[in-house]
Amino acid sequence: MIILRDISSVTAAISQARREGKTVGFVPTMGFLHQGHLSLVRQARMENDLVVLSIFVNPIQFGVGEDYEEYPRDLDSDSSKAEEAGCDLIFYPTTAEMYPQGYATFVDVERLTENLCGASRPGHFRGVTTVVTKLFNIVKPHRAYFGQKDAQQVLTIQRMVQDLNMAVAVKIMPTVREADGLALSSRNTYLSTAERAAAPILYRSLLAVVAKITNGERDANSLLTYLHDAISAEPLAQIDYISIVDTADIKPVSTIDGPTLIALAVRFGKTRLIDNIIVEV
Amino acid sequence: MIILRDISSVTAAISQARREGKTVGFVPTMGFLHQGHLSLVRQARMENDLVVLSIFVNPIQFGVGEDYEEYPRDLDSDSSKAEEAGCDLIFYPTTAEMYPQGYATFVDVERLTENLCGASRPGHFRGVTTVVTKLFNIVKPHRAYFGQKDAQQVLTIQRMVQDLNMAVAVKIMPTVREADGLALSSRNTYLSTAERAAAPILYRSLLAVVAKITNGERDANSLLTYLHDAISAEPLAQIDYISIVDTADIKPVSTIDGPTLIALAVRFGKTRLIDNIIVEV
Repeated sequence: MIILRDISSVTAAISQARREGKTVGFVPTMGFLHQGHLSLVRQARMENDLVVLSIFVNPIQFGVGEDYEEYPRDLDSDSSKAEEAGCDLIFYPTTAEMYPQGYATFVDVERLTENLCGASRPGHFRGVTTVVTKLFNIVKPHRAYFGQKDAQQVLTIQRMVQDLNMAVAVKIMPTVREADGLALSSRNTYLSTAERAAAPILYRSLLAVVAKITNGERDANSLLTYLHDAISAEPLAQIDYISIVDTADIKPVSTIDGPTLIALAVRFGKTRLIDNIIVEV
Repeated sequence: MIILRDISSVTAAISQARREGKTVGFVPTMGFLHQGHLSLVRQARMENDLVVLSIFVNPIQFGVGEDYEEYPRDLDSDSSKAEEAGCDLIFYPTTAEMYPQGYATFVDVERLTENLCGASRPGHFRGVTTVVTKLFNIVKPHRAYFGQKDAQQVLTIQRMVQDLNMAVAVKIMPTVREADGLALSSRNTYLSTAERAAAPILYRSLLAVVAKITNGERDANSLLTYLHDAISAEPLAQIDYISIVDTADIKPVSTIDGPTLIALAVRFGKTRLIDNIIVEV
């Protein structure tokens, strides 16, 4: 496995691979890899000749007062985990390499980014879609792998790829969870012991809502009330948002009818966690 | 020469050509081709194995009350001219093919698009950079050709290509002019006989300003005053803007010092014409 820091080296390595007829699988990350990321690398390994992982804590997707500076970083550990999972090449650029002096260009996906994390974190998705566009142009993958945990990100990137006619197949892999249901996240490392013990309330509540839908409940408001109550029962949980939206435009629905995303963001102390489930009825 | 209307056929044809090791040159246009466009096709012909021209009157780069509906269209004439100039493939999509239901993604270049035509035509450059991104992703050219007449467009696209790491070489060709200096434009067809007779004042005035700079004048304000007076002397000319800006950020300069764009937009009746000169001192 090799680690490259500059764009031109990556471009050269990938052009060479593509000329040899190799397929390229790509996993974009912010590093501090966990089993969720590694499940993407393993999937990419199964489906492609060359597996590329990027590690870049992308400043423009963090808002003022968010955790850009504190976001956990550990390249040594990431490298061994990535290599063991089957990664061939890590792209690990500096911020100046990605956003040199004079940088001015941004990609926006409208509508899908207005609600949920788009409302809580203004500018976040603009940062995501911009960096993913750059990474796709640099790595030129045949397939790119994302985790379902970031549901709005995934739906937004799918929309962007389709709208801008990018020649990339976007592959979505299931959220990987701890034994007690907590979705893996690099930010879980921020949780205190008490917060960590409280956090599984998120997935438990989502599963309870899915059970209600399976049993015939279709009214979004009553499901939202249930979710609010269930999560508020946990004293350490501070709700940022809980939403039930369609998966096409990420707009609130009143009735569960068709593919529906049930998504939430909840703070435990200073740590903001997200989770979601998609139901098809 | 072939004409293709759907994206998948273009993608297939170009993938085939690229697999055979052919280079692709691309000229994006809104059609109603004149010798300016054809100079780009001829240049592309000299430098590439496959020459692709797109004809698409892009609705999202026109503002409310602009000439989207009236913009001149003539595919038959365009086809013969393009073929004669060496074009191999015309991509001529419908609006629904380019912007299907649910379309939501836009590319913005900040700073460079704030002044000049960006100020007169809000949203114009967002439309341009979005459609050019899509066209680049569809056609995957090695080289793309643009005319210097649209100076702000050219500088904006160069910035976008660099910022988003697009693998395209942007080639800028000189403005092609009538014998009396009027820059070729599909919109010249709108001009009445009297307006057509008056329009060469634009280039004459620009040349006079360049002569002043050559003779040592460096003060932007005095050059702007001269230009205003020279063009206002023509009763049919209504100035939209006249600006002297740097070519990096397209911001007004007070002193000519380094690469400088002298650009103007002037209405003759209902027709808005643009022209420009870049000086390096």
